[in-house]
Amino acid sequence: MTNEQLMAATAVNLWNLGISRANKLFLDATPKELEHAVAPGKNRLIYIWGHLAAVNDAMLPLMGLGPRLHPELDEVFITAPDRTAVKEFSPAEVKKMWIEINEKLSAEFAKLTPADWLKKHSAVSDEDFQKEPTRNRMAIMLSRAGHIGYHLGQAMLLKP
Amino acid sequence: MTNEQLMAATAVNLWNLGISRANKLFLDATPKELEHAVAPGKNRLIYIWGHLAAVNDAMLPLMGLGPRLHPELDEVFITAPDRTAVKEFSPAEVKKMWIEINEKLSAEFAKLTPADWLKKHSAVSDEDFQKEPTRNRMAIMLSRAGHIGYHLGQAMLLKP
Repeated sequence: MTNEQLMAATAVNLWNLGISRANKLFLDATPKELEHAVAPGKNRLIYIWGHLAAVNDAMLPLMGLGPRLHPELDEVFITAPDRTAVKEFSPAEVKKMWIEINEKLSAEFAKLTPADWLKKHSAVSDEDFQKEPTRNRMAIMLSRAGHIGYHLGQAMLLKP
Repeated sequence: MTNEQLMAATAVNLWNLGISRANKLFLDATPKELEHAVAPGKNRLIYIWGHLAAVNDAMLPLMGLGPRLHPELDEVFITAPDRTAVKEFSPAEVKKMWIEINEKLSAEFAKLTPADWLKKHSAVSDEDFQKEPTRNRMAIMLSRAGHIGYHLGQAMLLKP
């Protein structure tokens, strides 16, 4: 592998680790456990799960990897704070979308060359990207891996 | 910048973002706020701060960037769970070490070439590194940036 291929692989590992830890936590949780809030008055586990699914799904257009698979997640898990959405998704529905979204992301990541990783993401203008070339696809992936870890830290508070 | 320089810079940005968010949270906290637990019976903010300082300090030898600056943090913030250490550090002491450690890390990161980032870390054998070349210094930095975010997610639960 070249240096740039190795760096891309090292960065993707951070993503994979986040997904694998999240899977361990969410896929094994019972519907009752998913109803627990991570701290009094704070988000329930099911909300965090759906929220991560929504934010991951939004990476597809942001990274220029295709249209969103489940934009319907946003009104329940991003726009509305927990317990306020008029609509609900069951744990089985969230699970199905979560797996589908992450499989799509993995498949797309696997196709990217180092130069692809360094292309601009869609929320930055050509002009700004000239000045700040680190606002690239790799930056989005790393930041969203960090986002998974951020909420996993909260979710882990439910462990004894 | 070359592709590999850009990738290293993109990865270092994740670290810088984590440190900057942590600074915003911890440096502005009052001694009273630092005594709050992130959830009932869970770690106090001061413990999380000292814990992050200890783990960051340990990156120095792990990444081959020099000896530890404050190994004395470990018995209070790593070995002992919160509220059980026989010794205590004041918020001012933690702050001083936290700043010193992160400034040292930043200074060392700034000297690394892309090839340096891809050298093995000290907890992997030559033989294993041959097989898994992603067990490099960049992987440590990314994983520890994730570690900061993990605990920041918990600390942010104290915000209204």
